[in-house]
Amino acid sequence: MNVIRYMPGPEDWAHHFGAGPARLDIAPGDVVQVATEDCFGGLVRSPADLPSEVVPFEALNPVSGPFHVEGAEPGDALAVHFIDIVPSKPTAISSLFPHFGALSPTHETALLADPLPEKVWFYQLDLDRWTARFSALSSDFALELPLDPMHGTVGVAPPAGEQRLVMIPSTYGGNLDTPELRAGTTLYLPVNVDGALLALGDGHARQGEGEVTGTGLECAMHTVFTVDVIKDAAPAWPRLENATAIMSTGSIRPLEDAYRISQKDLVEWVTELLPVDQYDAYQLVSQLGTAPVANVCDPNYTFVSRFPKSVLGAGAAYGGVHARLAAVAEEYRAAHPRIW
Amino acid sequence: MNVIRYMPGPEDWAHHFGAGPARLDIAPGDVVQVATEDCFGGLVRSPADLPSEVVPFEALNPVSGPFHVEGAEPGDALAVHFIDIVPSKPTAISSLFPHFGALSPTHETALLADPLPEKVWFYQLDLDRWTARFSALSSDFALELPLDPMHGTVGVAPPAGEQRLVMIPSTYGGNLDTPELRAGTTLYLPVNVDGALLALGDGHARQGEGEVTGTGLECAMHTVFTVDVIKDAAPAWPRLENATAIMSTGSIRPLEDAYRISQKDLVEWVTELLPVDQYDAYQLVSQLGTAPVANVCDPNYTFVSRFPKSVLGAGAAYGGVHARLAAVAEEYRAAHPRIW
Amino acid sequence: MNVIRYMPGPEDWAHHFGAGPARLDIAPGDVVQVATEDCFGGLVRSPADLPSEVVPFEALNPVSGPFHVEGAEPGDALAVHFIDIVPSKPTAISSLFPHFGALSPTHETALLADPLPEKVWFYQLDLDRWTARFSALSSDFALELPLDPMHGTVGVAPPAGEQRLVMIPSTYGGNLDTPELRAGTTLYLPVNVDGALLALGDGHARQGEGEVTGTGLECAMHTVFTVDVIKDAAPAWPRLENATAIMSTGSIRPLEDAYRISQKDLVEWVTELLPVDQYDAYQLVSQLGTAPVANVCDPNYTFVSRFPKSVLGAGAAYGGVHARLAAVAEEYRAAHPRIW
Amino acid sequence: MNVIRYMPGPEDWAHHFGAGPARLDIAPGDVVQVATEDCFGGLVRSPADLPSEVVPFEALNPVSGPFHVEGAEPGDALAVHFIDIVPSKPTAISSLFPHFGALSPTHETALLADPLPEKVWFYQLDLDRWTARFSALSSDFALELPLDPMHGTVGVAPPAGEQRLVMIPSTYGGNLDTPELRAGTTLYLPVNVDGALLALGDGHARQGEGEVTGTGLECAMHTVFTVDVIKDAAPAWPRLENATAIMSTGSIRPLEDAYRISQKDLVEWVTELLPVDQYDAYQLVSQLGTAPVANVCDPNYTFVSRFPKSVLGAGAAYGGVHARLAAVAEEYRAAHPRIW
Repeated sequence: MNVIRYMPGPEDWAHHFGAGPARLDIAPGDVVQVATEDCFGGLVRSPADLPSEVVPFEALNPVSGPFHVEGAEPGDALAVHFIDIVPSKPTAISSLFPHFGALSPTHETALLADPLPEKVWFYQLDLDRWTARFSALSSDFALELPLDPMHGTVGVAPPAGEQRLVMIPSTYGGNLDTPELRAGTTLYLPVNVDGALLALGDGHARQGEGEVTGTGLECAMHTVFTVDVIKDAAPAWPRLENATAIMSTGSIRPLEDAYRISQKDLVEWVTELLPVDQYDAYQLVSQLGTAPVANVCDPNYTFVSRFPKSVLGAGAAYGGVHARLAAVAEEYRAAHPRIW
Repeated sequence: MNVIRYMPGPEDWAHHFGAGPARLDIAPGDVVQVATEDCFGGLVRSPADLPSEVVPFEALNPVSGPFHVEGAEPGDALAVHFIDIVPSKPTAISSLFPHFGALSPTHETALLADPLPEKVWFYQLDLDRWTARFSALSSDFALELPLDPMHGTVGVAPPAGEQRLVMIPSTYGGNLDTPELRAGTTLYLPVNVDGALLALGDGHARQGEGEVTGTGLECAMHTVFTVDVIKDAAPAWPRLENATAIMSTGSIRPLEDAYRISQKDLVEWVTELLPVDQYDAYQLVSQLGTAPVANVCDPNYTFVSRFPKSVLGAGAAYGGVHARLAAVAEEYRAAHPRIW
Repeated sequence: MNVIRYMPGPEDWAHHFGAGPARLDIAPGDVVQVATEDCFGGLVRSPADLPSEVVPFEALNPVSGPFHVEGAEPGDALAVHFIDIVPSKPTAISSLFPHFGALSPTHETALLADPLPEKVWFYQLDLDRWTARFSALSSDFALELPLDPMHGTVGVAPPAGEQRLVMIPSTYGGNLDTPELRAGTTLYLPVNVDGALLALGDGHARQGEGEVTGTGLECAMHTVFTVDVIKDAAPAWPRLENATAIMSTGSIRPLEDAYRISQKDLVEWVTELLPVDQYDAYQLVSQLGTAPVANVCDPNYTFVSRFPKSVLGAGAAYGGVHARLAAVAEEYRAAHPRIW
Repeated sequence: MNVIRYMPGPEDWAHHFGAGPARLDIAPGDVVQVATEDCFGGLVRSPADLPSEVVPFEALNPVSGPFHVEGAEPGDALAVHFIDIVPSKPTAISSLFPHFGALSPTHETALLADPLPEKVWFYQLDLDRWTARFSALSSDFALELPLDPMHGTVGVAPPAGEQRLVMIPSTYGGNLDTPELRAGTTLYLPVNVDGALLALGDGHARQGEGEVTGTGLECAMHTVFTVDVIKDAAPAWPRLENATAIMSTGSIRPLEDAYRISQKDLVEWVTELLPVDQYDAYQLVSQLGTAPVANVCDPNYTFVSRFPKSVLGAGAAYGGVHARLAAVAEEYRAAHPRIW
């Protein structure tokens, strides 16, 4: 097992998918330990630091990478399996950002009405108890929330020579902002350029479905992942798999089109995995599918559509790559009891 | 415990919310046993019966009721607690209906492209094993699905003198088509006219989130519910509560507006139940909320936004009416071991 | 020429389409002179009268009618030709209404942000100069606007027994709020019940495309119209025709679906009128069509799609009924030089 | 008058905004004669050439440029005035492209239904009569359409280091696809990088509002334009001005958000140009504004919102730059009677 550690500093971070040179070469089967900074670039250091004042727009949401994956060629699928995602600082930060979030006028849903006020919450993290402590700004109310760490942003270089800001989710991944991107999950991304150019960041200690304010519990992470390349198997949109479900995503506006994309992709996936035609698969997705919204705040909205693996029988996605990567994860964890 | 049984025939069914006289008077605390027909009005009797041919448009989705609830006045909330929902026939039916469903051109998303073909699936129900058997139309593949019975349509008379077809979800309830409307759940509806005029139907033996084809496992039901009236507490949109969560709904197009309505209502509800202002509540919903889509096929799309009761502490919704109605349900079940 | 005058008082007004008895029987070929009140029910009498305070919700947007049209049966088209629309009072009123208008948070696009403030503008009308005088609220700036009177609301009873509030636009007409509904235009509506039950109101001395604030220059009108019935020719959605264009409408959310409905209907209409198939018609609409938005503020948004009659050659819509009704209008005007 | 001619070949074309080096340096006041290729890259040479077969995706919609504009710095506005736009080949081409156009299932509005068939129309252009001849594919019907040449795609480098495909409309211009971009119009774009990096292409001999099929009368153009730089005046979204109107644009999905963006920008522009506050300006836009949709087919939908210059009095946009550029155009035309 080849374990690589990558600890980038601000000068190493990327702010686009599809721009700049690879920071590191990795190969299928490698296990990568990577540090990521929070979505504020680490610049919000106290509740008095308003993000709109201390974080320049172009410094938002830095990602670690891109990583060049050996053997990944256009048309392939890149499988990224998250072995562990652990907050690396004692606090997580959430905020109301002006003109951001689903319940405020925004630059996209442009109104003459005033935006919501900017506010910042600091959560104290307790890794032993695996909790985050919320303290109300308007009273002395406090609450312990369970941690459920994930990465908001994981993606590769876009197709057709585009270069996109990291806060956008799309066909190549990016800022999907779904709580499903937690440890134990495999993400399948289409490879658009040689080496795929994988990058990731925007860790959340947890987030709700929809990320309605526009922010989760934003925090720096120590993350461990492994990758594989599946030849000629590029999905049209990012797909996920965990122990119990396969999942398709769609990222676009309006939200019903994000739902449609993810459902259509899931129907096509189920058609591949079960001995039925697309109408039978459509019927099964309609009865067995769950559909938790991911984000309703980013430049594109993201939906996740899930189907239970329990009914797939022998039909394993991508020849069982998820199970193989989960075995690598187990092997790694056995050898690294403290994860990192 | 006053138990009332109501077994309507086709001549008793209603097809609108807000039209026609009450079929029955009930009072808070009464337990009502009611039979409902499937969304096809019972007219699809074999897989060869195409709904578009055998079911006139105006016969679709009949509801049982309306029930006049003693003491319910405009401005009140009507609490409807589902004690049990049990399929009353050995089969459930699902179909692709022309110009219906999220992945077909429809009358609302009107395209020049051809709609999907009409198809009908019959599911065999096994109440002992609590399963439904799916048989593929395109192969000999078959599958057992767990039952999770619910009502797609539950509503009261609309405000302002409107009279709406039963397949529409809106502020007064109606065709919400969420799997959350199962036994054990309390639905809170605004009362718009004296007696509320509650009606219900459109039972599903189960459905996925989004009801993407436009139909669940449609079946006739034997349903038991009880009601209460909460004075001067009409919610703006239907709310739900079960053992673990409070839930707000929004029903409108586009889907992001349904999400916004349900999230805003949930933020306001949490603001009432916790000692925090709306910004702290917004923050908590953003981190702890889940948001399973209900339907993306009906004339309005419906979103459900959930918040865990575990963090509400002593803050019980509507003075604890859900717990009181759940106790009535327990008492009923103790006295009626076979439910009906 | 049978000329009928109908001057309803508040007790005669209707507030729904599809409810209540006909106020008057009219026949094809009759010319009707009808008075309509403004959308505030005449209750805003000075700029200090805030609509949200002086106009109960259910009193908004009264319509005159319904009129029972002799011979109109379900499946027919009702042609309504506007001969003249003239403001009947010296002022028109416009307002910012809380939670209304495309650039404010609304009940449908529900945000936590505050709505825009309520404000009222009184316009002085000068029928000789055919202008309306705008006076700014924030300065002494003033401006003369040309009059272009129209009816925001014209409709018939909905299908399938529904009863809808007058501020909603849909398949049966209603609150379309398009400036195209001016004198000289014929509106084609589907007949859903015997006699059609036509009603109209919501006069605007003028409005922009989209009616972005939610109000035009709202005023009471003296209106003259004539009707005809076209057997078995019910359009799916309201259509319009004037001297130079045929027009299809669609009323729904999101706005692209309203556009799609109106464009698809226009393609189908052009397919009927030219010796080409739907793909050629689609091509011609794509190159020659204009598409002015009607309203982006009502419960459904409305789009109008226009096609120039100049290229239709001999292909006259509905057998040339517009030309015949325009001739009736000319005859009426010749006999009534002062219109009314 | 400095007149520059630029005749790029395929090796010179650009396919992104924000990528690659400037092809030419120009200065404010220069008059540029530029040739542009059609959106198919000139590769559709007969009606039998299906675009999906003969045009690789990345070859679609080539633009001429980018041009580096002397003195244009981030934060400035670039004014581009079109002096003339003339088809340079005898035919224009339109097509139904699979999964494109507002009335077909697309990659964004993803359905299980089949897309519309691919079809190609060739129009014969007659520059003397200034017409294009449509010949139906389904019959021998033919029609002369008036020419109204325009550029679908005009833009500059995007902000924040993005690199976008040319078929996307956004804040930096791009594929706006509005018939308003005709000769005589000034387009105002925000400058995001030194030199602005202006590029243009996608000429249409004409198109309808909405470009419903996804294509206009696509043709190669000989175009003449001049530019100016307005310091520190970058608009948030592209703006236009012609002899009679100022116009704001918004490009996003859903379509109501494109409308909102363009209306809000127009309200803000009118607030600058008239001595009133934003509420009075909102009121005036609501009554005097027109709002022709531009495209409902591109990755973002585009709306144009217009306000009549007749009521602006002395309030000239950007210090009267449009009038100055129109004077340059007149001078050029006087000196170049055959335009080019």
